[in-house]
Amino acid sequence: MKLNDAILQKLLNCWPVARLATVSAAGLPHAVPIVFVVEGVHLYSPIDGKLKNGTPLKRIRNIEENPAVTLLLDDYHDDWQQLWWVRLDGEAELHVPDASVSRLLEKLLRTKYPQYEEGTLLPRDAHYLRITWRQGAAWAQSGYPAHIIGQAIDRLAIPA
Amino acid sequence: MKLNDAILQKLLNCWPVARLATVSAAGLPHAVPIVFVVEGVHLYSPIDGKLKNGTPLKRIRNIEENPAVTLLLDDYHDDWQQLWWVRLDGEAELHVPDASVSRLLEKLLRTKYPQYEEGTLLPRDAHYLRITWRQGAAWAQSGYPAHIIGQAIDRLAIPA
Repeated sequence: MKLNDAILQKLLNCWPVARLATVSAAGLPHAVPIVFVVEGVHLYSPIDGKLKNGTPLKRIRNIEENPAVTLLLDDYHDDWQQLWWVRLDGEAELHVPDASVSRLLEKLLRTKYPQYEEGTLLPRDAHYLRITWRQGAAWAQSGYPAHIIGQAIDRLAIPA
Repeated sequence: MKLNDAILQKLLNCWPVARLATVSAAGLPHAVPIVFVVEGVHLYSPIDGKLKNGTPLKRIRNIEENPAVTLLLDDYHDDWQQLWWVRLDGEAELHVPDASVSRLLEKLLRTKYPQYEEGTLLPRDAHYLRITWRQGAAWAQSGYPAHIIGQAIDRLAIPA
């Protein structure tokens, strides 16, 4: 099943988290939760460029070995009739934006994630994972992903 | 960073969802949310054996081509100081339990997931993904995954 583009774009614009899966040259999967914004046809996920134990983040090493990625958007709920997921398949690359794109992406990130204003600083001159994606599939336990995902989006707007 | 075994076992026993990443023979990642239970040294995730468009589920085809899997446990939270994840790396195989193991796994699933009693039936003679795992890494925004994960486990016990 696939979501229509309007619902999918709405979801990507507001859903705060996705799980990114990448694969090493040896065929081993890796997964990590990411934040992201939509700009044009791409998704961008900031990385702060820091080295972990002296080497780049595993997700970066993996996409340099194999650019294929999957992004999973979903929402666990104790009411299983509310369960849904959307999978995006694509390719990722390390992207170092020029100054104007950098300002645009920072603005998009600060708009989507007020947390960036509250002290969790965006790294200056952040690098990004730039993801070229296509919809893989959408699923809902109820059989109606567009309806259930619409409800999940509406709940996002209401502080818990 | 790694979690100590006691916290990790507690998390695995109670955390309802994980995101499972698998890889095809062609090196393409796939991800899906799963439910699971702990039995001995393995994790078991039920699959109902149904065919999707006439073929087995993608996760099954992938592990037959490449048994390497990653499981990501995490919890998105608007308060980023609460963010954490734990990654388990391992191998998965399709497991068809005998009658006594089948009864045990069904009991574990019904205990962890009351939803199975409420109408979302466990398939009779369910097959399982059996996952042999080791801890990959644990992370928390705050720098203290054991503390933050302990809090997340405590919140699980409190209905929203």
